[in-house]
Amino acid sequence: MKKSVHSRERVVGVIGGLGPEATVDFFERVLRNTEAESDQDHLHLLIDNNPKVPNRNHAIAGTGPSPADALVSSAVRLENAGAEFLVMPCNTAHAFQESITSAVSIPFISIVEETCRHVKECCPRLRSAGLLAVDGCLEAGLYRKALGERNIRQRVLPVHRQREFMELVYQIKSAGVDPGVREAMRSLADQLVQQGCEAIVAGCTEVPLALSPDQVPVPFMDSTEILAKRTVRYAKRQDDREQ
Amino acid sequence: MKKSVHSRERVVGVIGGLGPEATVDFFERVLRNTEAESDQDHLHLLIDNNPKVPNRNHAIAGTGPSPADALVSSAVRLENAGAEFLVMPCNTAHAFQESITSAVSIPFISIVEETCRHVKECCPRLRSAGLLAVDGCLEAGLYRKALGERNIRQRVLPVHRQREFMELVYQIKSAGVDPGVREAMRSLADQLVQQGCEAIVAGCTEVPLALSPDQVPVPFMDSTEILAKRTVRYAKRQDDREQ
Repeated sequence: MKKSVHSRERVVGVIGGLGPEATVDFFERVLRNTEAESDQDHLHLLIDNNPKVPNRNHAIAGTGPSPADALVSSAVRLENAGAEFLVMPCNTAHAFQESITSAVSIPFISIVEETCRHVKECCPRLRSAGLLAVDGCLEAGLYRKALGERNIRQRVLPVHRQREFMELVYQIKSAGVDPGVREAMRSLADQLVQQGCEAIVAGCTEVPLALSPDQVPVPFMDSTEILAKRTVRYAKRQDDREQ
Repeated sequence: MKKSVHSRERVVGVIGGLGPEATVDFFERVLRNTEAESDQDHLHLLIDNNPKVPNRNHAIAGTGPSPADALVSSAVRLENAGAEFLVMPCNTAHAFQESITSAVSIPFISIVEETCRHVKECCPRLRSAGLLAVDGCLEAGLYRKALGERNIRQRVLPVHRQREFMELVYQIKSAGVDPGVREAMRSLADQLVQQGCEAIVAGCTEVPLALSPDQVPVPFMDSTEILAKRTVRYAKRQDDREQ
């Protein structure tokens, strides 16, 4: 028996709350990227917005508890509730991806892999990309590895500016975005451009809250947007790759 | 043993997707109304964004299938996933509230009850309130009853302008909000003010997407905002009333 178009769509499971503003942003972008004339044309998403998950940066730096158990609980909760695949709109938490994937039997679409594939597809001759990502994400080497596999060298901010970036991310998490935050984020992207980067990768879901492609003079790869688009395509079975 | 502040907060279950834009808006307002310095200060929300629930207006008009089973499934799914109370950022779907509450054992905070209580608290001497709500909500008498219990008379748009309102709501659901939509919504609120209404109740979660309090010359009661604030207070155990 042929299933209806609706029932064939995959139910999306979102491991969220890392942070919550980035989860709202991701949710909104999924809607914006879905062609819909009525409510019923939109996707079924299950969102576990659990901001109580321990700080990922502290865990990776060895100064705080691991978030792995909380992330696994979230993944299992979503699978049990009926999610047919998982996404996690937080780059740094992907350092704990293996714990998650080994605990569930549904596919997990990685934001890091999707972003790096997209970078390669858009700019096949790219040799180096400037990365705006938090300390934990850099220490875990998530982008260094995934870009490296595509022969793209990851370039990062000098130490004092990376410190500035970290402060900015925590400021966005606590107080949101204002013109000062936008200008500071633009200046950090500009620093990478001046270092010779041919593209900027927003490898942190707080970055696109404060920076948009038109503010950057080189291709700007927004990991939240890339994951949102891929989520829609995978849910609608327009692209069945599991990674 | 004393529990930590975090673990004492109630996990919020959101019956969402009715429509999805209103769910994003509610989610964002919950964040905005939560005092937070870090991710971890935010609430744990489980959101079932299921836009596949049958159209509530058609069901109430007797021209389409009932959404009751789908709403009950959503409620049960959220309870099983760990939600400690339920909210539903859609006024009209509250016509099916009884089916939901009889299927779960956790409290359900009604947007209609909260909004009407808020109206009475803010304007104790109010005699009539103008209601912007969709046909199904009006036909089910949700606000007429809840306002009536507080000796407030519900006033609605004349038939031709109510038709305009319905078209506007479906336009917001399919294409979002633009300046034309904002102006049309303002004009409908203005109609109610000209009819002598001393307050406007946004009894539809699509209304505040297109209209803000500063555009209305009388008190504007935004049901999404009222439910978001109450959700935060109930989750944080600052207000333990179950309705």
